Amino acid sequence: MPSSNIPDIVIGRLPIYLRALTRLAAEGREVTSSHELGQRLGISSAQIRKDLSHFGGFGKQGTGYQIAYLIEQLKQVLQVDREWEVALVGAGDLGRAVAHYKGFLYRGFKIVCVFDNDPDKIGEVIDEYTVQPIDDMQQVIPEHGIRMAMIAVPAEAAQEVADRLIEAGIRAILNYAPINLNVPDDVHVQHIDPVVHLQRMTYYL
Amino acid sequence: MPSSNIPDIVIGRLPIYLRALTRLAAEGREVTSSHELGQRLGISSAQIRKDLSHFGGFGKQGTGYQIAYLIEQLKQVLQVDREWEVALVGAGDLGRAVAHYKGFLYRGFKIVCVFDNDPDKIGEVIDEYTVQPIDDMQQVIPEHGIRMAMIAVPAEAAQEVADRLIEAGIRAILNYAPINLNVPDDVHVQHIDPVVHLQRMTYYL
Repeated sequence: MPSSNIPDIVIGRLPIYLRALTRLAAEGREVTSSHELGQRLGISSAQIRKDLSHFGGFGKQGTGYQIAYLIEQLKQVLQVDREWEVALVGAGDLGRAVAHYKGFLYRGFKIVCVFDNDPDKIGEVIDEYTVQPIDDMQQVIPEHGIRMAMIAVPAEAAQEVADRLIEAGIRAILNYAPINLNVPDDVHVQHIDPVVHLQRMTYYL
Repeated sequence: MPSSNIPDIVIGRLPIYLRALTRLAAEGREVTSSHELGQRLGISSAQIRKDLSHFGGFGKQGTGYQIAYLIEQLKQVLQVDREWEVALVGAGDLGRAVAHYKGFLYRGFKIVCVFDNDPDKIGEVIDEYTVQPIDDMQQVIPEHGIRMAMIAVPAEAAQEVADRLIEAGIRAILNYAPINLNVPDDVHVQHIDPVVHLQRMTYYL
């Protein structure tokens, strides 16, 4: 189903649609429309129809979208109709919050190992995880065939951690460190930096 | 300096440029080029030149950008040449990590109050903050003239918290809850949902 013809910006909106549809389903709803979705998301209904048309006929003019069916289709397209194992690097305040977070499960992701290089943190237990030495990444990650990782280390350490993760076989990185990572073309990176979001809003205040 | 003619997508890139330039300055560098910035950020140099041209002559062809000057200009444009007071709602795992995070200071933001509705959390001290009852928001936020807030509460509670924040005078919200917020047109919202970022990458794996 994945096609390289679909613009990345469209792919970026699909998880938002999936989240909104999942919430509608949780509210007991069975059918929705591009109009309703658009109102909930602040996206035009025309844009939503156009985005979803990339993947074939999810809805019919006038009758709306079957929510359960659309959820299944979007999960298939995004390949989150399975569970992805994720490595987490960094067991500081942020890493702990990420490890505790229950929102990854049921949405396609399961953290399976946590690494840190601080001797005080190694061996510590966070929920079901025992913090492992960062030097073990090269062995543990290929052993489990893990391809996704989250980086929650200080900015100064993030690039080196990324390089080592990629060497170990990681192909998608969610980076919480406030620094841009340089990675090869076949590795995908997404950044989360709250200050970037805040600064984007102050312009308008 | 702010002009409503600048596309939002350009505004969204400026904090990324500011972050990269600040790092270059920290490395002791004084001059950079759109080419170098582009390589660091994975953005074309033509795009960077075009983005920065919206704000007048930051650089001259062939001589590059004066980093310190460009940083000052971008800070002015984004209005982060001052310090914004921010309210934080939610003192769970994520809220605590946000409250502990030292990366807001020096980039324009200072958390000044933390709210929660859990009697067990109210009165608790997190770094320099004492968790206040959520019912006090309506008084504390206008008193301090706070216009920005971060929401780190469960999805089910996020919309109500947002409504109350807006009623108290908040005009920009960074939402960590995995749900889309509906807000009036004069309120700005940015969302941080790690699963959305992860799902965006699995498409390509």
